[in-house]
Amino acid sequence: MTDKILPLAAVDRLIRKSGAGRVSEDAAEALCEVLEEHGMKIAQQAAVFSKHANRKTITAEDIKLATKQ
Amino acid sequence: MTDKILPLAAVDRLIRKSGAGRVSEDAAEALCEVLEEHGMKIAQQAAVFSKHANRKTITAEDIKLATKQ
Repeated sequence: MTDKILPLAAVDRLIRKSGAGRVSEDAAEALCEVLEEHGMKIAQQAAVFSKHANRKTITAEDIKLATKQ
Repeated sequence: MTDKILPLAAVDRLIRKSGAGRVSEDAAEALCEVLEEHGMKIAQQAAVFSKHANRKTITAEDIKLATKQ
């Protein structure tokens, strides 16, 4: 297992909240990986947008715009 | 702010890892929301697949298949 940024326990809770009965540990790991990749892509795009606007701070607006791409 | 399942500090770290300088707190909240929604959609689809396979436990294979949809 590679180093995860998002805690597995939190991702496990997310899966349980979706109506799942039992959740295997590798399921939480798999979703964790998917969410981190998705999040990194959005964050990288948001960083480009903040630079484009001559800011050094990433804001919620950057994230929202990046999510729409 | 609504109750978050994924911890904001972890989402903040994810944004920082993408090369961001500074990250506003509302940026982390915005990305947190996006990731939770995305994760819930995948988990709900994975739950459908596990039931379809007559299982009560969601596995990594369910998550991977749901991610492809």
